[in-house]
Amino acid sequence: MDQLDNDISFENRLQALRMAVEAGNLTAARALLEHFQAPDQAELLEELPTDEQVKLLPQFPPEDSADILAEMDEAWAAELVTALPTATAIRIIEEMEPDEAADLLGELEPDQATTFLDRLKDADAEEIRPLLLHADDSAGGLMTPEFLALRRRTTAADALASVRSWQPKSDTLSDLFVIDRDGRLCGVVSLRQLVIAEPSDLVSDLMDPEPVWVAVGTDQETAARLMARYSLLVLPVVNGQHKLIGVITIDDVVDVLEEEATEDIQRLGGAQPLERPYLDTSTFIIARKRIGWLLLLFLTESLTGSVLRIFESELQAVVALSFFIPLLIGTGGNAGSQTTSTIIRALAVGDVRKRDALITFWHELRIGIMLAVVMSAIAYGRALLWGTTPALATAVSLSILAIVIWANSLGALLPLAASALKIDPTVVSGPAMSTLVDATGLFIYFTIARLVIGL
Amino acid sequence: MDQLDNDISFENRLQALRMAVEAGNLTAARALLEHFQAPDQAELLEELPTDEQVKLLPQFPPEDSADILAEMDEAWAAELVTALPTATAIRIIEEMEPDEAADLLGELEPDQATTFLDRLKDADAEEIRPLLLHADDSAGGLMTPEFLALRRRTTAADALASVRSWQPKSDTLSDLFVIDRDGRLCGVVSLRQLVIAEPSDLVSDLMDPEPVWVAVGTDQETAARLMARYSLLVLPVVNGQHKLIGVITIDDVVDVLEEEATEDIQRLGGAQPLERPYLDTSTFIIARKRIGWLLLLFLTESLTGSVLRIFESELQAVVALSFFIPLLIGTGGNAGSQTTSTIIRALAVGDVRKRDALITFWHELRIGIMLAVVMSAIAYGRALLWGTTPALATAVSLSILAIVIWANSLGALLPLAASALKIDPTVVSGPAMSTLVDATGLFIYFTIARLVIGL
Repeated sequence: MDQLDNDISFENRLQALRMAVEAGNLTAARALLEHFQAPDQAELLEELPTDEQVKLLPQFPPEDSADILAEMDEAWAAELVTALPTATAIRIIEEMEPDEAADLLGELEPDQATTFLDRLKDADAEEIRPLLLHADDSAGGLMTPEFLALRRRTTAADALASVRSWQPKSDTLSDLFVIDRDGRLCGVVSLRQLVIAEPSDLVSDLMDPEPVWVAVGTDQETAARLMARYSLLVLPVVNGQHKLIGVITIDDVVDVLEEEATEDIQRLGGAQPLERPYLDTSTFIIARKRIGWLLLLFLTESLTGSVLRIFESELQAVVALSFFIPLLIGTGGNAGSQTTSTIIRALAVGDVRKRDALITFWHELRIGIMLAVVMSAIAYGRALLWGTTPALATAVSLSILAIVIWANSLGALLPLAASALKIDPTVVSGPAMSTLVDATGLFIYFTIARLVIGL
Repeated sequence: MDQLDNDISFENRLQALRMAVEAGNLTAARALLEHFQAPDQAELLEELPTDEQVKLLPQFPPEDSADILAEMDEAWAAELVTALPTATAIRIIEEMEPDEAADLLGELEPDQATTFLDRLKDADAEEIRPLLLHADDSAGGLMTPEFLALRRRTTAADALASVRSWQPKSDTLSDLFVIDRDGRLCGVVSLRQLVIAEPSDLVSDLMDPEPVWVAVGTDQETAARLMARYSLLVLPVVNGQHKLIGVITIDDVVDVLEEEATEDIQRLGGAQPLERPYLDTSTFIIARKRIGWLLLLFLTESLTGSVLRIFESELQAVVALSFFIPLLIGTGGNAGSQTTSTIIRALAVGDVRKRDALITFWHELRIGIMLAVVMSAIAYGRALLWGTTPALATAVSLSILAIVIWANSLGALLPLAASALKIDPTVVSGPAMSTLVDATGLFIYFTIARLVIGL
């Protein structure tokens, strides 16, 4: 069970750990931690002061320390590693899975990473080095070069013998890949198929000859969605010559999908996504990630002032006009925000594809009309209840009708257009939507008011 | 590769498929589809008219039809099944994985589901029936009862023999569970460990005696996050007596995490989440899912009218005051929306836990102050540029300062409070945030303006 979900138990354990550490009793501290799984050990350790973490981490066998480091935030794990005695750090890095070691080394200063790489066992360094060349958010950055490749003419028995003699660092091994003499990917066979096959069966007869694969430069989100769509546990990564150069495992992909959803949510909220967990990011960096959009939206929003200025004489004549300003543009913003968030997510998960643009727009337009009719009737009633004149109430009601339809159309159109132009549709965030609807909504409102009230 | 990503290729294939179907050539249509994987077959099929789908689906071997049905939207798969001849439908359902068959039967009218259950092979019906009792969004609703349980005193060789003789419908088998004589979960061993072990090794010596598990009633999102956190491929589900009654596989969990993220995004956009993909949901249902929040926000937003009414004489005296209304409340809404979306996602993925409430609020308050100072300076400049009087510019600038700090605090406080009260924090959507900030922001603005300008 996720024991850390229980806050009281977490605080208790943390306190026991702190006491052991403060008493300098590292054996007791280690014993307290040993009972946990690596993700929990990492979370508890991270709550301790840095120098205590540096003292405690090497108390574990190097393979356990490696697991703990892999569960920590990468940037923090990198800081911790540089604080350790180099020999200790090397011992731990050698036990890490190559893709995780590469992620960690990628966080270090280049010369520091080189120092570590030079001191690693040649076999490990050779696995890690090429991984450092791939972009972090590509299939190459996500893959591990640890895989077992079989040949077509191998028997099931020999294949199982290779599995036995192979000692990978990760144990998420469920599929094995088959390559031809040039190392090109030509099939996939599951460990289970090998186990249930007759020992003399050939791999070529057992394998699926059309495995799903990705190119090394593919975006990590595409790779992740491919694995989700086809329910794959392992995805082979090939280079330009179709040579198998690594595999992506599902556990890494789950993290990628979660990360991508987090980034989308932050962008939809109108902020640049954070690179590290919220509380681990300094307030200054978070403020910097937000100020850009906040400013841009502020400047766009100041258009509303210009629109209001145009209608200054109307405002002067009928002060009651201004009472409905926030209500009308707020409702437009809300309707638009409902639309964009739905459309953007549907685009992200593939429920709406580019070819569906027209039908999506038509779908949303009809939804907008239904919502607009209902809201417009209610707005009329609400305005009269306030003792507004029937003429102004009519203007307000017609404005809501026009603004909601407009907001829904814009809310569908903009993400679809962004996607067609290969721009990330999350630029059309809720705040961006409200801002756009505000200025245009005011214009609609005052134009209708001018006509209806006859100002 | 995801061939369907390529829109042109999709349209081409769909057209070829349509032509074959229209020519009544079902063999050709099947041949066209055979080349694809089940998710793509399902997507292509769904584009055809219903009666063509009914004709085409039984053309495949029942196990393939079962895979295709499992990839379709559940409600649609259920409709399709009822349109098929009963004998055909039964043959296909018998080939489905029990959890998927249960999901499909759960979509049917109860008497129809009973008819199908009665005609299924006893072995299949017995597996499916208990699954129908669990809530769809619980661990029980997600699990499959197909698992291979080993006993502690079994040898690795015997365990592998059981794997060989076992014929599960799914092949996502990577871990085997160990139970005691009462069927209680007592360990986990991976297929790989069995393969590399000495044949005479006992399962009890190979297994991890502390497997992560969930109770059958656990919420599916909790189960999913547990698997993500501990990188599990299979998660055992136990009942109140700790008896192993099913397992959850990672491929289902990936879908759950995606679904939960989708629901969160739709809620953050201010709408009730949809149960089916966007384009498969009728415009009427989508409108109904949105109107509730839209109305509630409208009524709340109409508070802004009441606030403005209070300050009617000020508005009458200085019309220019109204020029800044949308700008000030819009900026407050944007700042608040940036905050809530970040905090809500951090709560969902566990970056912020309940025990972090105070530190999170303090973090956000400092961010708010930084943003407020910058925005306030810029607002002063912008107001002067418009030829506003220095007194009004000062009032606007001070208002932005207060409103941004207020919006950030509220944006952090509300989701944290909701979470503490065990309410889903996504109720504090972007639109809800803007609406709350609008009325309070206006009050702040006019109060400051009254003091500064001396109205």
